[in-house]
Amino acid sequence: MTPPYRVILHNDNYNRREYVVKVLMKVIPGMTVDNAVNIMQEAHVNGLSVVIICSQSEAEDHCTSLRGNGLRSSIEPASGGC
Amino acid sequence: MTPPYRVILHNDNYNRREYVVKVLMKVIPGMTVDNAVNIMQEAHVNGLSVVIICSQSEAEDHCTSLRGNGLRSSIEPASGGC
Repeated sequence: MTPPYRVILHNDNYNRREYVVKVLMKVIPGMTVDNAVNIMQEAHVNGLSVVIICSQSEAEDHCTSLRGNGLRSSIEPASGGC
Repeated sequence: MTPPYRVILHNDNYNRREYVVKVLMKVIPGMTVDNAVNIMQEAHVNGLSVVIICSQSEAEDHCTSLRGNGLRSSIEPASGGC
């Protein structure tokens, strides 16, 4: 099993809320509208939010797709932490 | 200005949703019920969520308070990322 990665969504001041939700649902497999709205909202309030945790290669793909749709995204190792 | 830190909430299988929301509102200054519900929900779905970004000493205090109320929390540097 490869170590997990986080896909991060960063807030921006140019994309509309509805568009961000739409992109999240288009790009991330299994994304529900409720989850997409929460993720968008959290990025808005906190500056960033965790979109999904997955393998590094999936995370890279998701990040590229989000960026390709004009969103700000990054990935980082999901080191245990707690 | 000190470099920013993230306070992370980790999902757990023992605290009730309402309790998590209540603790977030008690511990984090300015936390609204809407934001607390989102943070709780995202931790539930993704395994973790970002509670707030603040200074390291504030983050340590928040983390200690969250843990003191039975929640799982950690902090990490909020390195630029994007």
